[in-house]
Amino acid sequence: MNARLALCLLVAGCSSAPLALRDMGSFHVGGREVTISGKPVKEVVFTPGGVPAKIDPNGTYVAEAMYVQYFLPANRRGAVPLLMWHGGGLTGVTYESTPDGREGWLNWFVKRGWDVYNSDAVERGRAGWAMYPDIFKSEPIFLPKADPYGRFRMAGSQFPVQAYDNFMRQVVPRWTTTDEAIIAAYTALVDRVCPCVLLFHSQAGQFGFRVAQARPEKVKALIAVEPAGQGDPRQVDRLKAIPTLFVYGDNIEKDARWPQIRKNGVAFGEAMRAAGGKVELVDLPQAGIRGNSHMLMMDRNNLEVAALIQRWLEQQGLYQ
Amino acid sequence: MNARLALCLLVAGCSSAPLALRDMGSFHVGGREVTISGKPVKEVVFTPGGVPAKIDPNGTYVAEAMYVQYFLPANRRGAVPLLMWHGGGLTGVTYESTPDGREGWLNWFVKRGWDVYNSDAVERGRAGWAMYPDIFKSEPIFLPKADPYGRFRMAGSQFPVQAYDNFMRQVVPRWTTTDEAIIAAYTALVDRVCPCVLLFHSQAGQFGFRVAQARPEKVKALIAVEPAGQGDPRQVDRLKAIPTLFVYGDNIEKDARWPQIRKNGVAFGEAMRAAGGKVELVDLPQAGIRGNSHMLMMDRNNLEVAALIQRWLEQQGLYQ
Repeated sequence: MNARLALCLLVAGCSSAPLALRDMGSFHVGGREVTISGKPVKEVVFTPGGVPAKIDPNGTYVAEAMYVQYFLPANRRGAVPLLMWHGGGLTGVTYESTPDGREGWLNWFVKRGWDVYNSDAVERGRAGWAMYPDIFKSEPIFLPKADPYGRFRMAGSQFPVQAYDNFMRQVVPRWTTTDEAIIAAYTALVDRVCPCVLLFHSQAGQFGFRVAQARPEKVKALIAVEPAGQGDPRQVDRLKAIPTLFVYGDNIEKDARWPQIRKNGVAFGEAMRAAGGKVELVDLPQAGIRGNSHMLMMDRNNLEVAALIQRWLEQQGLYQ
Repeated sequence: MNARLALCLLVAGCSSAPLALRDMGSFHVGGREVTISGKPVKEVVFTPGGVPAKIDPNGTYVAEAMYVQYFLPANRRGAVPLLMWHGGGLTGVTYESTPDGREGWLNWFVKRGWDVYNSDAVERGRAGWAMYPDIFKSEPIFLPKADPYGRFRMAGSQFPVQAYDNFMRQVVPRWTTTDEAIIAAYTALVDRVCPCVLLFHSQAGQFGFRVAQARPEKVKALIAVEPAGQGDPRQVDRLKAIPTLFVYGDNIEKDARWPQIRKNGVAFGEAMRAAGGKVELVDLPQAGIRGNSHMLMMDRNNLEVAALIQRWLEQQGLYQ
């Protein structure tokens, strides 16, 4: 190791601080066994010139597990692990390098001393997916390039639009019938690695709040980044001991769908507060952070938003 | 950082050495635009209680890109980056923590100072997949639990069979019609990050050798771990300047398919040698390393195999 790096590692706040990890790794968690029958056996040549194999698709599958990758900093400062849950049609890549190659929230929070668990939910990425309609009950939805650009409020935003194609390379097929399987796997993850903080985006709004309602004693804070869904409104009291932050980006009022989506989140937060919960809601433009799209963690000012979340976590006493 | 860790970072060979990285991140590379037409527009409610969205599946897609995650050690000792390419029905998880939670080849080589690029090829994992039969030309194949156990020679092997279900959680759907797309994306990856060493397993035998034939000047060594396919036999001369190591596990002669699969690899290696290439072939039992299944990088003695590869790389002058 060179002397400059060694010095960096020993001096807090070094501007080009590397990532010093005590460990990193991955695992799968959750899922269930499903037995399939009545399908024909196939003879498959997997590789040109290879040796044919008989593949019998009947039998028992391990379906609906999820994938988790963890990065544990040498100098741990977060009181509990920070779990990052991506949105719909996406994977844990959401929190890695931005589509234009800048630092994402994963590296940023690891460098600040958080044990981060970044994951791919059931149905996508390294979690894999199951045959349909046998196991998953519907067909997947594929998003052409034109679709997220509008729904994710990217026009005129801080999103690095020159790298939009790289963002679309991150998009994976999505089902609308896997919510319960996703929640079951996330619950298994929480049982394995928590107490923790849950940071969740968009589709995962539903998952974050519902899993916290299932395991309130294991969740020390909730960070809902533009949640597109909420928890069970009849069980808001189960969240009352969990400090919660809602974060919304810019230009919501100009969109056809986002005013209602935000209103749903606000109403859920108000119900949590009425039940005795500690809920803060930040509309970023009101905090002087302007131009954010739905993909806040990829926007040009993504680290400003990360710093706002970090300050809130410090205020909750979750950072040493 | 605590004093013990700081010392570890400064002292070579510290037994509990953490991972000191100068950077880590990810990107997608390759792919092509495909236009789809003639499909009905759907109204989709993505999240219960959410706001319906009209999804028009017609339009332009970015398909057949691949995903790459990189880990760059602070103390770089590999002369060039080391690219790890997984086998069929699998993802880059192959090289991460083993199914029973031990250290995998990714961490092991990063700790030894190699810049490692671990990836998910087209069709799987974080690369995503495309609609079929519109873009991918066949249906995917799903593997029930019983299938790989036999084909991958796990019975009585060093594979950690108590964690077999965790291995099956890593298995993803597989196509047999995407080889050309996979090769195109791997070639784009080589163009982006090489000169490099390619380490490839099983199905990726075909990809490693063929991409090296397409870009021989960019590939400084090839490590074929139980390759299930080879390159173009008419172009073996394009590989003659690239030192190549074949590695095979144990119990091949007891299997129905593996004697022929190994024979195909041996014949390709001999053709490379006849064309002037420098080719070594190690049958691990002959080297005193016994009991390896097809998943060498997950077997209980996986780090012994890694060390054998490391020594070979050192002998090629690729380690400083």
